[in-house]
Amino acid sequence: MKVVVLCSGGMDSVAALYWARAHHTVVAVASFDYGAKHNPREIPFAREHAAALGVRHEVIALPFVNQLFASHLLQSGGEIPEGHYAADNMKQTVVPFRNAIMLSITCGFAESVGAEGLIIAAHGGDHAIYPDCRETFMQAMGDTMRLGTYAGITLLRPFIDLTKGGIARVGYGLGVPFARTWSCYKGGERHCGRCGTCVERREAFLEAGLPDPTSYQHEDPLPAAPHGSPGSPPPRSP
Amino acid sequence: MKVVVLCSGGMDSVAALYWARAHHTVVAVASFDYGAKHNPREIPFAREHAAALGVRHEVIALPFVNQLFASHLLQSGGEIPEGHYAADNMKQTVVPFRNAIMLSITCGFAESVGAEGLIIAAHGGDHAIYPDCRETFMQAMGDTMRLGTYAGITLLRPFIDLTKGGIARVGYGLGVPFARTWSCYKGGERHCGRCGTCVERREAFLEAGLPDPTSYQHEDPLPAAPHGSPGSPPPRSP
Repeated sequence: MKVVVLCSGGMDSVAALYWARAHHTVVAVASFDYGAKHNPREIPFAREHAAALGVRHEVIALPFVNQLFASHLLQSGGEIPEGHYAADNMKQTVVPFRNAIMLSITCGFAESVGAEGLIIAAHGGDHAIYPDCRETFMQAMGDTMRLGTYAGITLLRPFIDLTKGGIARVGYGLGVPFARTWSCYKGGERHCGRCGTCVERREAFLEAGLPDPTSYQHEDPLPAAPHGSPGSPPPRSP
Repeated sequence: MKVVVLCSGGMDSVAALYWARAHHTVVAVASFDYGAKHNPREIPFAREHAAALGVRHEVIALPFVNQLFASHLLQSGGEIPEGHYAADNMKQTVVPFRNAIMLSITCGFAESVGAEGLIIAAHGGDHAIYPDCRETFMQAMGDTMRLGTYAGITLLRPFIDLTKGGIARVGYGLGVPFARTWSCYKGGERHCGRCGTCVERREAFLEAGLPDPTSYQHEDPLPAAPHGSPGSPPPRSP
C-alpha cells in the first residue's frame, strides 16, 4: 500500500518509518512543528531518517498552536513536569486535539499525493490521560479519514498491540539507530531522564532487555509505575 | 453553551455566526486562510461581522495547504470551472480533507478557550461530490471531537436540515447584511455569477423569494440543477 508516515523523530515513529519502509511503499514522511519545546530537537532526527531511507520529507509548521492553544508542552507554556506519565500534572502537557490536527492534515496531504494509507506509531501503552490517544478516539478518527476522502484513506497503527518495549525490540530487528531519536519534552541539550517521556523511554529499553543508547542528564532510579508493570498496556476492547 | 464559530465570510457561515450569537455564548470566531483564490475576498467579511458583534476573531493561516495539496480552488491550482456544482469537473475544486483540518484545529482551539461546542454552517444541500461534506463524514467527525477532548466538544450544525435558501431566510430574519458576505471561488473584484458557488448563491435568494443584494459580473440564466429542484437537499438518513 502507498502510505504517508507521521514521524516526529521520536523512537516510536522512527521505528514506524523503518517498519513502513519494510512493509509498504512510503510516498512521504510528515513531521509537525507546532511550537513544542522539543520540536527543534526531534524534527532533525525525522529529517535524517527520511533522507537515509531516500524518502520525501515535509515539515509542516503550525505556529497558531503555540499562539492560540494552552499547554505546558508548548514554548508559550509553563515548566514540563517530572515523574511518571499517569501523574495528574501530566495533563498540563496535553496539546488539545493535537493528534486529530496532525492526522487530518497528513490525511489531506496523503490524498493529494495519491497515498491510500497513513501510518501512526500509536501503541498499546499510550495514555488514557490524553483523550486523543484513546482507542475510541482513534477508531472514530479512522472512520473520519476513510469517509472524508475519495481514496478512503486507511489509518494504520502497526504498533497498536505492542508496548513501547515491544517497539524497541521491533526497531532493533529493523536496524533502527535509536541513538538518533529524541523523546525528552524539555528539549534541552540532552535527554533530562526525568520527564514523562524520558521515564517511558528508559523503561522501554529496560523492558525490551536492550541497551539504552541515550545519554541522560539524570539517571535517578525510575519512579514506580502507577498501574501495572512498567510499559504494560492498559486493557483495551478489541 | 459556550461555542466557537467557524466563519469563512460566506453567506452560510456569517448567518451561522448571527444565529449562534442569538442562541449561544460565542467565545470566538475562527477563519482559515488556506491559500484559496477567494480567501482574501471572504476573510475580511468574517472579520467585519465578528467586530460588529464584538466577538474575538482569529484568522488561522495554513500556508502548507497551498504548497502541498492539489486543488483548483487553491492559488497554486488551475482555473475554477463554471456551471452547476454537481458537474464532474467540480471535483477539481475539492481541497482534500479541508473540513476535517479546519474542524480539528478549531476544536483544539475551542478546548483551549473553554468552549463546549463548535458551530459549522453545514446544510442539507451540501455536496456529495465533496466527501468531507457528507453526512457519514460529519457524524464520524463529531464523534472524533467528542471523544478526543476533555470537554467532549460537541459539533453543532444548526442549519443541517435547511437548504441554502432556508439559510437565506433565517439570515434575513436575524438581520444579516448579506451584501457583506462573499461566495465566488474565483476571488475577483466582483462575484463572477457563473462558478458553482455563485450559481448556488443566486439560487438561494431565488428559492427564498428574497432580493439578492449581490453585484454579479455575469447574470446569465441559471444552469439547470442536475438532480431535483434547485437547492433541494439530498435524501439523508436521520
